[in-house]
Amino acid sequence: MTVERVSAPTPAAFVDAANAAFRNGAVLSVQARCEVEYNGRTSGYLGDGDRLLVAKPDGTFLVHQPTGHKPVNWMPGGGTVEARTSQGDAVLLARRSNPTERVETRLHEVYGVTRFDAEDGATYEESGTEAEMHEYIEANPDALEAGLRIVEHERETKYGFIDFYAVDGDGTPVVIEVKRIQATLNHFDQLKRYVDRYAETNDDVRGMLVAPSASERVTRALRDNGLEFVALAEFGLDAKGATEAKLTDF
Amino acid sequence: MTVERVSAPTPAAFVDAANAAFRNGAVLSVQARCEVEYNGRTSGYLGDGDRLLVAKPDGTFLVHQPTGHKPVNWMPGGGTVEARTSQGDAVLLARRSNPTERVETRLHEVYGVTRFDAEDGATYEESGTEAEMHEYIEANPDALEAGLRIVEHERETKYGFIDFYAVDGDGTPVVIEVKRIQATLNHFDQLKRYVDRYAETNDDVRGMLVAPSASERVTRALRDNGLEFVALAEFGLDAKGATEAKLTDF
Repeated sequence: MTVERVSAPTPAAFVDAANAAFRNGAVLSVQARCEVEYNGRTSGYLGDGDRLLVAKPDGTFLVHQPTGHKPVNWMPGGGTVEARTSQGDAVLLARRSNPTERVETRLHEVYGVTRFDAEDGATYEESGTEAEMHEYIEANPDALEAGLRIVEHERETKYGFIDFYAVDGDGTPVVIEVKRIQATLNHFDQLKRYVDRYAETNDDVRGMLVAPSASERVTRALRDNGLEFVALAEFGLDAKGATEAKLTDF
Repeated sequence: MTVERVSAPTPAAFVDAANAAFRNGAVLSVQARCEVEYNGRTSGYLGDGDRLLVAKPDGTFLVHQPTGHKPVNWMPGGGTVEARTSQGDAVLLARRSNPTERVETRLHEVYGVTRFDAEDGATYEESGTEAEMHEYIEANPDALEAGLRIVEHERETKYGFIDFYAVDGDGTPVVIEVKRIQATLNHFDQLKRYVDRYAETNDDVRGMLVAPSASERVTRALRDNGLEFVALAEFGLDAKGATEAKLTDF
């Protein structure tokens, strides 16, 4: 069972479910009316309101109000989260040392709690911008196919901008969609939408997805729909791989 | 109904539930196995894995892996989040302009989705550190009670450090717990634990909670348990109020 849900638990039932999740390394998400205290580098207080609380097995604890991408309070991984009852309420306490700080949440009403035994071995892979790849293709259309000629870069259609409109050596139009990351089914969707649009007036149009690589599932979807894939392996992952840079605006 | 849950929805049922939540301004949390693409300032890809997805009515979208306090991908408020089906999967697309960026999540398996019609009018209130208040009390014990004498600051007990151990004008010991924010039931709990510990050997011990203010509920709990409250209103909220400073480590 990957996910287990308890709706409107009593404080005692909530505490049991939460502590079992913490023991077993599950991700906990809680919808609750609660008040929150922070004590550590400063002191802080957030009065009663509805919030989404998230606890992760590494000790991460997040308090999310209904708006904003930043949690209003949180603890990073490395500490502990525990649940207890107190004065008829359930209480979640997240704390760590070095620096010593704690976020204590008193849950006046628990609407629901979800335990998520999540498995995730993937790592975020970041690559450069598509603009670099566009420049390269514009200067080297032969890298996609001998005899290919670019007619228009970023042609506007009523379905959005297509990356390249080209013609092949036989004069057949080619709609080209360029992706900087491994091709996905979303990319297939997008290319198919553009090609279908062109096929309304020209049966002969070809559709070409260009990306550093593609899974078997994506190449099969393309093939089954009469579309093509071209790998530009030189635009594979940068050596830096995943990056923290994009997290700086938090 | 504050919370509505659908377990293991079909892609179509998920899309209906998600779009209804977006239309109605609810907070959505989703447990799913998914892959994620980012396109904007850079390009990024996160392969298949179990994640907690959160969408808020302001357009905020968060992708949380099972560890770490930062979302692996996100969009701030201001844009839109929409759900659709594609190639037999549910897809969540979060996007905004200025800068143009998009996070597209393909959900290969939706374990569950929770819609949360959250109401929250509270604002996080930050105050200084308790250390400032401790210094003040140490220099001005009369501010708590005429004739009070501090015996020990931060006395270690097996239940933790109590803030002040003092004696009153009659020589009765006083356990003092100091809080920089409005007193809460958690503080009452803590003081009661310390006082109970002392009462094992000295029936006469007094317990005093010192804070800028306290709700009626907290003062009642204290009174009902023979404990006291002292307001130090001069340590109320700083003019700056809520702050962004504590969010900088994201």
